[in-house]
Amino acid sequence: MEKITVVKIGGNVIDNPEALKRFLEEFAALQGAKILVHGGGKLATRLAERLELKVQMVDGRRITDKGTLDVVTMVYAGLINKQVVAGLQAAGCNALGLSGADGNAVTARRRDPNPVDYGFVGDIERVDSGLLRRLLEGGITPVFSAIMHDGQGTLLNCNADSVASAIALGAAEIAPADLVFCFEKNGVLRDPEDDTTLIREITSETYAPLKADGIVSKGMIPKIENALKAVEKGVRSVTIKHSENLLNEIGTTIK
Amino acid sequence: MEKITVVKIGGNVIDNPEALKRFLEEFAALQGAKILVHGGGKLATRLAERLELKVQMVDGRRITDKGTLDVVTMVYAGLINKQVVAGLQAAGCNALGLSGADGNAVTARRRDPNPVDYGFVGDIERVDSGLLRRLLEGGITPVFSAIMHDGQGTLLNCNADSVASAIALGAAEIAPADLVFCFEKNGVLRDPEDDTTLIREITSETYAPLKADGIVSKGMIPKIENALKAVEKGVRSVTIKHSENLLNEIGTTIK
Repeated sequence: MEKITVVKIGGNVIDNPEALKRFLEEFAALQGAKILVHGGGKLATRLAERLELKVQMVDGRRITDKGTLDVVTMVYAGLINKQVVAGLQAAGCNALGLSGADGNAVTARRRDPNPVDYGFVGDIERVDSGLLRRLLEGGITPVFSAIMHDGQGTLLNCNADSVASAIALGAAEIAPADLVFCFEKNGVLRDPEDDTTLIREITSETYAPLKADGIVSKGMIPKIENALKAVEKGVRSVTIKHSENLLNEIGTTIK
Repeated sequence: MEKITVVKIGGNVIDNPEALKRFLEEFAALQGAKILVHGGGKLATRLAERLELKVQMVDGRRITDKGTLDVVTMVYAGLINKQVVAGLQAAGCNALGLSGADGNAVTARRRDPNPVDYGFVGDIERVDSGLLRRLLEGGITPVFSAIMHDGQGTLLNCNADSVASAIALGAAEIAPADLVFCFEKNGVLRDPEDDTTLIREITSETYAPLKADGIVSKGMIPKIENALKAVEKGVRSVTIKHSENLLNEIGTTIK
């Protein structure tokens, strides 16, 4: 394999049927071996509300109790994953949907309940790159939800960005791996209101001044720092771009 | 491969967590290449009720409208499939959950809307035995829900018994295939109240008098006739047995 592209999409694409359809067509057209990781979107929250599940929050973070785990498993690993897979099949891409439990692809460890018990939430432990290799070599495109398992029969809800990074690292054991995070902007902008101020490239050297100057701020900080970490560990590049720019060069690449 | 065993479980096992756990441990212990097909159970109905979806019936049969399709996709291809896969992984069986869309494993055709439009309901069209072979040869146990796709991006709810038969026929292209239907009795009984009156074997020759005498009646008629058809088309044997008897010989075998 010449290279593997791992693409992550989040709620902004998933919640918009037309954007999703366009994205899936572009993703299907992406050349070479590839893997898709999808997040959740608002559907799980809406379903939990309709089922009148009590939302428990600690420090602004939601607790994944058993009822919530069932809902996210239904929505992420079921409805969204199968709709995405069926959409990719229709676009000519031989997709195959996976949770971490499927083929024991990804195991996670339940997060330490001390000091705060977040419930059925996990952190990635191990990605089976052998399984990824066999699927990719068979012409199959794996499509991951962020529902993983602990290997002992318990499903765990994980952060989809972290899943994408871990899978890109697993892919890097097979071939040079490029990771693409799709979101609702063109990339890191010097002026958040002006798309023409896109920063094309960030390295560990150029990152510090960007952070110090407040150009990289808020939610972008963990994104870039995770990207730098992934690159340090062996992912060839991480690009942050708009979901509509998948097939062109517009975006911020972290190397 | 020496042989492939295809096992189908339905709601009576799925709805009972302890029966399901016992079954999954026995299934994990089953020797040789194997495939599991699971039906739905009452959870989808309960969820549809809690979401206050209107159940539309025609001639005693439920219409699968878009809302119902989403619910069965969530429950069958999501929650149940992933819980079964995680349970098998915990029992040491390398399971991988599939809908028909995954890897384009099984395509279905939407049922003719004339004279009655049952909605998003499909009949099996094609099983990709090449994919089954690659998974089985890789030591993976496919676990199918009955959610299939039409290849054009539409998911379709199918009858799980028919899915099991179609997959057994696909498996028969790879190796001798034995199909096992688990249900809540030991098999076909001469006296439905007496487990000791089990009929051990039915063939196309012995079936006619059993039907004429009313020993095979009601819901058992389509089961046996589908089994005879599967055997005629190339499945080596079909056995109807209690889910607790998976690893022993108690059951009715149709040859």
